[in-house]
Amino acid sequence: MPYIALNSAEPGIRGLLRYRPETGRPLSELAEVLLRGPSTLTRGERELIAAYVSALNDCRYCSGSHSACAAAQLPGGMVLVEQVRADATSAPVPAKLKTLLAIAAATQQGGLSVSAELIAQARAAEATDLEIHDTVLIAAVFCMFNRYVDGLATVAPEDPALYAAGARRLIKDGYLPPTGEPSRPN
Amino acid sequence: MPYIALNSAEPGIRGLLRYRPETGRPLSELAEVLLRGPSTLTRGERELIAAYVSALNDCRYCSGSHSACAAAQLPGGMVLVEQVRADATSAPVPAKLKTLLAIAAATQQGGLSVSAELIAQARAAEATDLEIHDTVLIAAVFCMFNRYVDGLATVAPEDPALYAAGARRLIKDGYLPPTGEPSRPN
Repeated sequence: MPYIALNSAEPGIRGLLRYRPETGRPLSELAEVLLRGPSTLTRGERELIAAYVSALNDCRYCSGSHSACAAAQLPGGMVLVEQVRADATSAPVPAKLKTLLAIAAATQQGGLSVSAELIAQARAAEATDLEIHDTVLIAAVFCMFNRYVDGLATVAPEDPALYAAGARRLIKDGYLPPTGEPSRPN
Repeated sequence: MPYIALNSAEPGIRGLLRYRPETGRPLSELAEVLLRGPSTLTRGERELIAAYVSALNDCRYCSGSHSACAAAQLPGGMVLVEQVRADATSAPVPAKLKTLLAIAAATQQGGLSVSAELIAQARAAEATDLEIHDTVLIAAVFCMFNRYVDGLATVAPEDPALYAAGARRLIKDGYLPPTGEPSRPN
């Protein structure tokens, strides 16, 4: 049960975005640009970074949601997502993505943990400046979302089918709220 | 020296917001709403939460910038900001703000560290739901900004006078970029 009285029964981040639309709007835009906007990283790869960081932060709602989004958009499906979550260094992902996952894990620990050596490894695997930038920002953004969702004790369903259904909706409609979304009363 | 080639010599977050305006815009809007928008917490109190979390994350640029913004808008000035950064539990701040700083420190550790007891203490000190919400989100947002700024090794000046000058500009003009801001060249 959430620590504050929300204005809907929606779980996880969804209830928070609806409760405070003044912050919900830029947060939704950020997710849309980073996870679905134009990029040389696929949507599946970006969702995988989000899922991986959320799992490192033990955030059940966000890791469930973004694991489902990644699984639905990557050839390896949920088997691959679970391999990455269990041990990203040994998971069967392309070399460049592996170096980006290592940068994401360091970012999750803290900004000062991202070493020049990790950046050099990503460059050696042909990661671009923008890919490195977006990886650090996606990881940082999920360190925010995870804290926001769990810091207010929002509801996190257990049933994987609910996350899979949410992923189908996100893949179809994206992260921006529908226009005409009701705002917080008073 | 930053890990990626930015399109300006601006330090800290400023160089990053200019480099990637697609993400810079929602990030700036988020800071503006949370730190300067309508609230029952003063701007000085909100900047203090941002400065405190940034110091806990050892982010020199963000803690320097938001400490200067807090000091310029709180009666206790930089002396009070430094007391909070050194030990928030013994600093001479009002009871409600002290409980919110404790929630912010827990959020910095991780979302699951925010206990029902910390929330109950804030309520006993007459914090509202929206104040608790905004405290958790400000703390979470600075866990993002701190990681973004240091994860890409942006420049963090040492001279306190530079942060004080930046604070005067932020207090006057806010966090939104001026219209007509140049975008990232391809």
